[in-house]
Amino acid sequence: MKATVESAGFKAAAAALDRDFERHIADTIRLTEIASPPFKEAARGQAYLELLKQHGLSDVEMDAEGNVMGLRRGTGGGPIIAIAAHLDTVFPEGTNVTVKRTGTRLAAPGVGDDSRSLAVLLALIRAMDAAKIRTKADILFVGDVGEEGPGDLRGMKFLFTKGKYKDRIAMFISADGTDAGSSIVNGAVGSKRYRVTFKGPGGHSYGDFGIVSPAFAMANAMKKFGALTVPASPKTTFSVGVVGGGTSVNSIPFETWMDIDMRSESRAELDRLDAAFKSLVAAAVAEENAARSTAKGKIVADVKITGDRPSGHTAASETIVQIASASVRSFGLTPSLTFSSTDSNIPISLGIPAITLDAGGASDRAHALDEWIDVEKTSSLRGMRIMLATLVTLAGMQ
Amino acid sequence: MKATVESAGFKAAAAALDRDFERHIADTIRLTEIASPPFKEAARGQAYLELLKQHGLSDVEMDAEGNVMGLRRGTGGGPIIAIAAHLDTVFPEGTNVTVKRTGTRLAAPGVGDDSRSLAVLLALIRAMDAAKIRTKADILFVGDVGEEGPGDLRGMKFLFTKGKYKDRIAMFISADGTDAGSSIVNGAVGSKRYRVTFKGPGGHSYGDFGIVSPAFAMANAMKKFGALTVPASPKTTFSVGVVGGGTSVNSIPFETWMDIDMRSESRAELDRLDAAFKSLVAAAVAEENAARSTAKGKIVADVKITGDRPSGHTAASETIVQIASASVRSFGLTPSLTFSSTDSNIPISLGIPAITLDAGGASDRAHALDEWIDVEKTSSLRGMRIMLATLVTLAGMQ
Repeated sequence: MKATVESAGFKAAAAALDRDFERHIADTIRLTEIASPPFKEAARGQAYLELLKQHGLSDVEMDAEGNVMGLRRGTGGGPIIAIAAHLDTVFPEGTNVTVKRTGTRLAAPGVGDDSRSLAVLLALIRAMDAAKIRTKADILFVGDVGEEGPGDLRGMKFLFTKGKYKDRIAMFISADGTDAGSSIVNGAVGSKRYRVTFKGPGGHSYGDFGIVSPAFAMANAMKKFGALTVPASPKTTFSVGVVGGGTSVNSIPFETWMDIDMRSESRAELDRLDAAFKSLVAAAVAEENAARSTAKGKIVADVKITGDRPSGHTAASETIVQIASASVRSFGLTPSLTFSSTDSNIPISLGIPAITLDAGGASDRAHALDEWIDVEKTSSLRGMRIMLATLVTLAGMQ
Repeated sequence: MKATVESAGFKAAAAALDRDFERHIADTIRLTEIASPPFKEAARGQAYLELLKQHGLSDVEMDAEGNVMGLRRGTGGGPIIAIAAHLDTVFPEGTNVTVKRTGTRLAAPGVGDDSRSLAVLLALIRAMDAAKIRTKADILFVGDVGEEGPGDLRGMKFLFTKGKYKDRIAMFISADGTDAGSSIVNGAVGSKRYRVTFKGPGGHSYGDFGIVSPAFAMANAMKKFGALTVPASPKTTFSVGVVGGGTSVNSIPFETWMDIDMRSESRAELDRLDAAFKSLVAAAVAEENAARSTAKGKIVADVKITGDRPSGHTAASETIVQIASASVRSFGLTPSLTFSSTDSNIPISLGIPAITLDAGGASDRAHALDEWIDVEKTSSLRGMRIMLATLVTLAGMQ
């Protein structure tokens, strides 16, 4: 790593990032202001595809899922190293995505999650080109869809299991977020999400009193769910996020539902929690059918999966973690290995070494309308250089 | 009663109801097709007020609550006998209230509950006029607001506790529904309804795992509520009608809520149930605050009353019940005394003898979009005549 960052090539690239910084800010603003709601990333995707072309990549394309990507060809023979930022935001159509700039602070929904990273990838390409850096491996630059909640990592699932580069990507970096630049996400917090709908005959609250109620069945399931015990480490969690159902105060509901979320750093713990959850739903249904009359019909539960993100772990001993750690240290920071739920969950779950890095700076309020980032130059350039050093080292800088 | 129904005057009125029957159907359709959602009864109220004027009543007016009414003056000295049908329906604005007529069957939201009764009152006035029937007591004809759920009997509450006839109405008949004509509702099922909102700090389902959750507090309250025991007689019931809350699957809700309904034929049982309910909500909140971390804030419950209808009973020995029973029998049917929640709840709770009668015919699907009535002439005329005989006997036919 010392050799890399002290090489003339890398120094030239690092200097280019500095000279080019205002353009990077302009790219960040421009991309942020193209709204990109879940499942509606096409406009931002098309704009990013044009930018990838303008940056001279080859094989620039949009795949069937909506990911856009292009190759920076290596000198040949090496595996593909992929680096991606996600196109989607959590914000619905109609959200005001105008960026408010105050000094080095940019405020707008999605500006840090993940528009700036999209702009960072472009800055890295320009810096490598300015410094005439060649790598052994091909580098695949990707703007991907579906990273946020409802997308359920659909972009990554397609890229790694169906797209034309599946089985050809040796290592993966997700560029996500604007933070100090020292975190290396090498653990994938897995999650399972369900919409559970309890259905029954329904009826009049007075006239039909005594029949089974989906509301009471659901309450029983929620109470059992809340009473589960999970380990603090590996961190494992559960939550009821949203509840609904029923038609009027004087009717026994024919349907109630709840959206639940379970997560774990450990696949085994997540599987154990998932099994306990399914079993308690069945028990709550059976108990309601035993506690009240089923003369007009029984309670049944429809358990529909709405999210499935695999858990996993890129070992700290893997090259990608070692190189990223060395890169962080070479810029005077202390690396911290952490768990999160990011695009890297998919390659990690497939056994492909993957990490998630941020690009320096500071930020807060991600997923809120008052989201902001601070692109103070020293910290931001440091983060971008850490990412560049990691990338070119993995790709075999020549 | 035998004297009444065999009198020349009553026979003339009964014959007038027959001759006038198609007009009664036309009135039913016309009134049904003026939408009258809860709290938005003004258009139908204004139309009914004009009809009361056209029917020659005196002192026709709309009171401050929106009830419309007029007097058919008696020969003097007697107390006021009031008869009312309600203007409001359960259906929201925008509901298609066009009546579909197929033979004697009329289908439309609200047609039987309670448009036809509004039309029945007009038919009774015309029949009495055609037969030149005079009564000793004044008869107050009322189209009232707020009978359905959210209205919480506001029309009756105003009429009997604030309006200009308060303390002057000696007996009350609610004309409600289209059924065989033999039921006499002399028992008032009381009810209490609440919107309970559980509030907490909220947070991220993974990052904030371990903090208190309004969803789990509510589940515990619902489970305790569902486990209460109530007597089969006097009939006492409880239900969770509607639930909601939460913002996204990956957030711990900052708020969840439930709409609950409790009813009883007995005021003492309803009070007992109400006390148990309030106590279990407090216990569920305390248990959630003890079970999980309150470092970011505690759970609190906001218990807001949304409905309060008093229980009570007009004794079977009361004149109004005796006369109505005799009237039913004189038309060859067997009276059945029943409990329900109707406009009569208010006078009954105030100690004013009151009953609820339907006007003959058949119906089903009240409160549903496919509500219908069958105004088959024999049964419908019989019901209307039972109601007329009851009314003129109570008012002292001369």
